[in-house]
Amino acid sequence: MSAPTTTRLADALRVLAVDAVEAAKSGHPGAPMGMAEMATVLWTRHLRHDPAAPAWADRDRFVLSNGHASMLIYGLLHLSGYELPLDELKRFRQLHSKTAGHPEVGITPGVETTTGPLGQGLANAVGMALAEKLLAAEFNRPGHTVVDHRTWVFHGDGCLMEGISHEACSLAGTLRLSKLVALYDDNGISIDGHVDGWFTDDTPARFRAYGWNVIGPIDGHDAAALDAAMTAARAQGDAADGKPTLIVCKTTIGKGAPNKAGGHDVHGAPLGAAEVAAMRQALDWPWGPFEIPDELRAAWDQRERGAATHADWTARFAAYRAEHPQLAAEFERRMAGVLPAGHAERTAEAVARLAASAGTVATRKASQLALDALAPGLPELFGGSADLTGSNLTNFKGCVVAGRDRPGNHLSWGVREFGMAAALNGMALHGGFIPYGGTFLTFSDYSRNAVRMAALMKQRVIHVFTHDSIGLGEDGPTHQSVEHVPSLRLIPNLDVWRPADTAETAVAWASAIARHDGPSALALSRQNLPPLAGAERAADIARGGYVLADAEGARAVIIGTGSELHLALQAQAALAAEGIPVRVVSMPSSSVFDRQDAAYVDAVLPPELPAVAVEAAHPDFWRKYVGRRGAVVGIASFGESAPAPTLYQYFGITAERVAEAVRGLLG
Amino acid sequence: MSAPTTTRLADALRVLAVDAVEAAKSGHPGAPMGMAEMATVLWTRHLRHDPAAPAWADRDRFVLSNGHASMLIYGLLHLSGYELPLDELKRFRQLHSKTAGHPEVGITPGVETTTGPLGQGLANAVGMALAEKLLAAEFNRPGHTVVDHRTWVFHGDGCLMEGISHEACSLAGTLRLSKLVALYDDNGISIDGHVDGWFTDDTPARFRAYGWNVIGPIDGHDAAALDAAMTAARAQGDAADGKPTLIVCKTTIGKGAPNKAGGHDVHGAPLGAAEVAAMRQALDWPWGPFEIPDELRAAWDQRERGAATHADWTARFAAYRAEHPQLAAEFERRMAGVLPAGHAERTAEAVARLAASAGTVATRKASQLALDALAPGLPELFGGSADLTGSNLTNFKGCVVAGRDRPGNHLSWGVREFGMAAALNGMALHGGFIPYGGTFLTFSDYSRNAVRMAALMKQRVIHVFTHDSIGLGEDGPTHQSVEHVPSLRLIPNLDVWRPADTAETAVAWASAIARHDGPSALALSRQNLPPLAGAERAADIARGGYVLADAEGARAVIIGTGSELHLALQAQAALAAEGIPVRVVSMPSSSVFDRQDAAYVDAVLPPELPAVAVEAAHPDFWRKYVGRRGAVVGIASFGESAPAPTLYQYFGITAERVAEAVRGLLG
Repeated sequence: MSAPTTTRLADALRVLAVDAVEAAKSGHPGAPMGMAEMATVLWTRHLRHDPAAPAWADRDRFVLSNGHASMLIYGLLHLSGYELPLDELKRFRQLHSKTAGHPEVGITPGVETTTGPLGQGLANAVGMALAEKLLAAEFNRPGHTVVDHRTWVFHGDGCLMEGISHEACSLAGTLRLSKLVALYDDNGISIDGHVDGWFTDDTPARFRAYGWNVIGPIDGHDAAALDAAMTAARAQGDAADGKPTLIVCKTTIGKGAPNKAGGHDVHGAPLGAAEVAAMRQALDWPWGPFEIPDELRAAWDQRERGAATHADWTARFAAYRAEHPQLAAEFERRMAGVLPAGHAERTAEAVARLAASAGTVATRKASQLALDALAPGLPELFGGSADLTGSNLTNFKGCVVAGRDRPGNHLSWGVREFGMAAALNGMALHGGFIPYGGTFLTFSDYSRNAVRMAALMKQRVIHVFTHDSIGLGEDGPTHQSVEHVPSLRLIPNLDVWRPADTAETAVAWASAIARHDGPSALALSRQNLPPLAGAERAADIARGGYVLADAEGARAVIIGTGSELHLALQAQAALAAEGIPVRVVSMPSSSVFDRQDAAYVDAVLPPELPAVAVEAAHPDFWRKYVGRRGAVVGIASFGESAPAPTLYQYFGITAERVAEAVRGLLG
Repeated sequence: MSAPTTTRLADALRVLAVDAVEAAKSGHPGAPMGMAEMATVLWTRHLRHDPAAPAWADRDRFVLSNGHASMLIYGLLHLSGYELPLDELKRFRQLHSKTAGHPEVGITPGVETTTGPLGQGLANAVGMALAEKLLAAEFNRPGHTVVDHRTWVFHGDGCLMEGISHEACSLAGTLRLSKLVALYDDNGISIDGHVDGWFTDDTPARFRAYGWNVIGPIDGHDAAALDAAMTAARAQGDAADGKPTLIVCKTTIGKGAPNKAGGHDVHGAPLGAAEVAAMRQALDWPWGPFEIPDELRAAWDQRERGAATHADWTARFAAYRAEHPQLAAEFERRMAGVLPAGHAERTAEAVARLAASAGTVATRKASQLALDALAPGLPELFGGSADLTGSNLTNFKGCVVAGRDRPGNHLSWGVREFGMAAALNGMALHGGFIPYGGTFLTFSDYSRNAVRMAALMKQRVIHVFTHDSIGLGEDGPTHQSVEHVPSLRLIPNLDVWRPADTAETAVAWASAIARHDGPSALALSRQNLPPLAGAERAADIARGGYVLADAEGARAVIIGTGSELHLALQAQAALAAEGIPVRVVSMPSSSVFDRQDAAYVDAVLPPELPAVAVEAAHPDFWRKYVGRRGAVVGIASFGESAPAPTLYQYFGITAERVAEAVRGLLG
């Protein structure tokens, strides 16, 4: 009996995809069927991976950017020998199965990133390839190549229409990420039908314009052509020109379905019993649903090949450790995402020192001071800005600017907010880095879905959003955030910090760095702010909200954040002069505050006291704390172009208005 | 005395930009200085416009996509003879001047769109060019060309790095928008410095890959070369290949500043007194700040040329009107944005008919039924979807699919949410259309800043956001909105509707169409929903929130929206059976509700009654109505991949939980 052909192996993926979608009564069979040969050739011949060790540091990364083709990756993982039993495939798209509608990292062993929102997988892959290149430069030594893997990313027409594909792939060309290989499932179909009506790019020419090596178009169902292309792409990893590779694979969506292949009906719905039967006949596939014959299983099983590849690396890593024990330990620490020994103590010391020496500075500047203090002990910090380095102040003393073929720990990402955010997700997912990136808060709109994806994937990514309100002044309403801080606070599992001074900013950074299970966003002022909290308040600040300044017999609470906290204190003083004692609460992070126990929450914000919040942002968010009948001094309209002090007066975000609001409540 | 040279005319723009930035002590002098010749040649020789009639229907459109160069357009408008006196230039970036930090439509006569968020101006221009092409096809007649203008858009490196430039320009190539001319200010500088480190695209090759006609690179300071390129670009408007044109202009940022030109320091800060003096000397410019000699003023003045061009069109339009009176009247109506005679009555009748015949349908289907009813009487409705037509149900009976060189009233935009939204803004700004577009609600994240820009610009654009909650089921958390409806509600001047049934959906559409001063977003269900409101409730629904089902002696209020409103009614029934009377309020649009008078608001939501809100979305928003101690049945975490009914149970969004919450408040 001869070994099964690649087509036969690919048919196993096809049938599993079709059967699972049929069982779930929903899903996307067309793309897995069309990409079956691409996936088979990659996973059985080229991908360096070990099904028994999905977290192995030097594995190749595989990203399915067209995540609706999730059954492709589930089929691949199952057949390759990952811990994804057939029962899970039968529970495709059911509650708490390991086979969610779109692939989710952390749920399915072997899934490297959560995909579905189109284009982002491509950008994740760019981040992964960048992480690999940086780690290789940092950790490899002559005779010891311990970081040397590729990032393979499948994507379709949809990913290429999305703007983020431009941002990510343009940058990948500039940075010469030669170990990045993108495989384009060029099937000419998207949900609305044949793409000629809305997508007529010459994609190979487009990618050549980005500085990519383009292979094809090739027949995406021809195993030999695929094998040759992938072999060439692997060789490109060491090419002097450093170009990433795009392999254009002409495929037929739904290939294998005799009547539905090639049309958009096969994209997003079950084939139906009749077509499934016709497919089985056409493929000469006599087995029942979810049934894979042993000889195909055996040919698919990658455990032996994977174990050997992995063992080879383990031996090489042992030799590396023998010669470079500290580097080896550091590499393991970095890849495990564990903070360095003594980090907590050094951070506490730094926060105290910063708070003690704090002057009147913008919180964006305080953020840079925090980076100056923390970064030297944290080589995993990788900073950057979407072309606003000097405004976001994301760089720090002694940081090394990374570039084309030049390692470093700060990158100018170009004007690519969304691509940057999604690539930061890729870097975090790859491991070895705590990535952060800056832009103006208003442009968090551009990157918003990638911020959301970091939260969903529980990744430690830090967003530095400066110029966080009308306080930026003359640039006007296009650049002035009104709704951004409150709407970021609504993203589950995102910690939003809006610190008021140097101490709060330092604690925000410390908290974001220490947080293992999700992203943080820092909203920072352009304008200078006075120091308010002292070093001794670090533990309070870290609770997200705390009593900054109490008053005996307080009759009301004023809650402030960021650049308006000092207005709360001024109002408190004015009211005290009138004999009205009020408490001032600083709330740099409402999500962190909400995670405190109820006793603490009620102690800080006594339910019986009326409350006024002040924040230069949309007021509705604060109803959560002040109630329907409390008061909020905020701004519910767009800003204006004028100097910041003028705007604060014009929009009435002043201590007088805060005091007035308190009087009104006590009225 | 010979006529001033183009360079001399350009110097006037340079000096005005420098002086205004100096006076404001902030702003961006570099880009206006670099683009001065490009602007001069275009505005004095090619742009068809009439300074006395900035709203003339057939004027060329000019878009400054790199909006930070705002002083360029203010200088152009002032010198050309628009109503923008020198005093306004002296008040650059001051409160309520007509010279905001970034150009704002509606504030400055002659500014066609608000720019600043990079890349969006390009996409606005694509929408404008599309609107022109569609109107030309619809209204021109043999011998009568009344719609025939170009869209010119300036942009820089930043715009080209942004992903939206890919979405918009790729589509412009496909749709053969040959009257679109983009002028690239290729100065090799962005804020972080020389772009070689982060932007190395072969931009001409990239645009050729999109199907564009590319001219250059040319010397962007050479008037003859610019003139020849613009002449060629105008000729391209009638070319058989239909390609849009990109003119690549190599320029020096800050040209004219002898020491700072060519560097990034000149980008975003005043030159400083010394450099301003040096510039005046280098340019041989003896005049003081804001002083323009008469001969330059005379050479710049475009009023005479503009009046003649306009008069020619007016005469031609009169001839058109004589032969096609109805078409002429209809064209004027469309361009004025006035709804057709009898629209209100037809809409009321349609709403009543739809509500009366309403079955159990998804609100996305109800939306399509509303379109079926309303679209035949509204030729200005221009629909589309970002490759989800069959899911968003944005198409309607008898709609004509537009495409390459094929007019129509529904477009497949491809997978380009952000590009679509910004192009819809361009169509609305151009006039003649009420554009709407669909995608999944989750992907409002991708288009969010363009939605914001429509709100800021007060444009009538309608977003159809379907699959609006965990109710979409198996596609899982990447596709399930949790925070999107509440966070869209925070965008000032955006009306968000989340209708519960056919009647509410029809009213939402009617309201969005009737709204002249801002965009609307419709959040619609994937899943079927029962009819709840009757036709007789149309006026109530139009108030945004209303008492759907009252109870004698109600002790609490349940507020519901969209797909959860029926849960509120079920809870009401269960509580009634226990002897607890409660009122049910439907709140399809909180912003519309908030615009009602206080008496109505308090009558619907009596302040003394405890309240419970139910919505399958992040609960925090509802604190505005239920207060800190009310209750919200919602979802504060990400969703899961499973069938929708399973998810509603799993997340506890059920009538039982609503009833329980009421009991808890009354307990």
